[in-house]
Amino acid sequence: MLKLIENHRSFKGFQKVYEHNSSSNNCVMRFALYEPDDAIDSPVLFFLSGLTCTEQNFIQKSGFQKYASEKKIVVICPDTSPRGESIHDSENWKIGQGAGFYVNAKNKPWSNNFKMYDYITNELPELISKKFNFNHSLVGIFGHSMGGGGAIQCALKNKNYFKSVSAFSPICSFLKSDLAKLAMDNYFNNETKLIEEYDPISLVKNRSLSVEDILIDVGLDDEFLEQLYIDEFYEHYKKNSEKITLRKQKQFSHNYYFIHSFVADHIHFHANKLTSIK
Amino acid sequence: MLKLIENHRSFKGFQKVYEHNSSSNNCVMRFALYEPDDAIDSPVLFFLSGLTCTEQNFIQKSGFQKYASEKKIVVICPDTSPRGESIHDSENWKIGQGAGFYVNAKNKPWSNNFKMYDYITNELPELISKKFNFNHSLVGIFGHSMGGGGAIQCALKNKNYFKSVSAFSPICSFLKSDLAKLAMDNYFNNETKLIEEYDPISLVKNRSLSVEDILIDVGLDDEFLEQLYIDEFYEHYKKNSEKITLRKQKQFSHNYYFIHSFVADHIHFHANKLTSIK
Repeated sequence: MLKLIENHRSFKGFQKVYEHNSSSNNCVMRFALYEPDDAIDSPVLFFLSGLTCTEQNFIQKSGFQKYASEKKIVVICPDTSPRGESIHDSENWKIGQGAGFYVNAKNKPWSNNFKMYDYITNELPELISKKFNFNHSLVGIFGHSMGGGGAIQCALKNKNYFKSVSAFSPICSFLKSDLAKLAMDNYFNNETKLIEEYDPISLVKNRSLSVEDILIDVGLDDEFLEQLYIDEFYEHYKKNSEKITLRKQKQFSHNYYFIHSFVADHIHFHANKLTSIK
Repeated sequence: MLKLIENHRSFKGFQKVYEHNSSSNNCVMRFALYEPDDAIDSPVLFFLSGLTCTEQNFIQKSGFQKYASEKKIVVICPDTSPRGESIHDSENWKIGQGAGFYVNAKNKPWSNNFKMYDYITNELPELISKKFNFNHSLVGIFGHSMGGGGAIQCALKNKNYFKSVSAFSPICSFLKSDLAKLAMDNYFNNETKLIEEYDPISLVKNRSLSVEDILIDVGLDDEFLEQLYIDEFYEHYKKNSEKITLRKQKQFSHNYYFIHSFVADHIHFHANKLTSIK
């Protein structure tokens, strides 16, 4: 059952937040949903947030609502992990609650709840399609940092569902990045083969996966730049497909001031891709 | 001495936060300053925030930077009160730290530090004019809720300095509003005459003050609508001047989703007013 817990008028639409019981993660989950006026049959765009975030950060700080309302695109922002007192956690911000990494953990106790890959690619799409009259064949995905890597790996493996993909400052190596390594090693008990199933660089390198087009923005003053491995992803991706646009933005860093400055471009990118399918 | 404590690239400019010793409030104060590229000789616009806010809320949530960078307007967001362990406070959010109301308190112990009127209309303008090469004769002011009332009363009494004024959901009666009454009674020891020196409705009614033009936006689903007394302010204002625009926005409430949806109009309003003076 979906429970509406927030509803705010924002530009020409409503910014909502829902709560529901997640069967994948075995807990109550929240997601935000921006619904432009008259959104019947509108395309749907998922945004995956970064480490430490909830469903709130993007909806409060990115300013995407203006562009989503103009283009009549529904935007859904899930939380970044299972959450609650009964959910396993750590004091380190790189693992546990707020650090789901959009994977299905294989190692106990994480595997009891941390099934964000199933949640994003199966449970949530099914729920949205059952409860709302949007256009469920025009679906895109984007994200930031951990969520940028998440958007890329989800899109690469689910091309029939996610028809457009872009990312802000994505973590492209789950094997090497200092931001991802702790969670990966623990969620997968150090089994590289399992991690490679989610690692953007491995998916492109070992399985030659690509999507029709991809837009990546990153700030050149990003304090985590060395831990994103975007250039390495770009090089491997180029071997499979020419269709990748990597923009390196001078003076910008890893924060929401950066996302806000370029979110219009990303909404327009997805609107163009999804509308051209129609 | 000004100390730069934050500096983020945001659109075509930098969102900065400074810290300095305030002689008015007798404590360390922070203010945010958005500086568009090549802002030499740019107009300056002050934004006063509402109850419980710091200098952070508006810069993180309103999305004004896009429009300020396009119009090359410097935007300064002060904190809402003196702050720190040595500063008198209360557990009630309507009085004390976060609730400076942009007045000079007369009653001890508040009067030791709560001199936000002097800070906004004297100390901060002098500091900005000394330290930056902006255009200090083209200055506007706007604000939200407590800060909307603050912007109006500061502008009404300092027409030579503040040449444009607008407000989101301003508290217009410091004497009657349940949001203002506790602070006013305590800061001024219940002396109505002293409160009237800051109360927007009293300034318009008793002293027939007006400004050349004023824009007010308010949401019709504002949860504090009855406590803002905007209609009463509007009626009294109309007796002195025709130049007031009050827009009642259907379905919007008191929050930053509301501010974000109309901040472009306010920046453009100030840009037009200030540029026409040139």
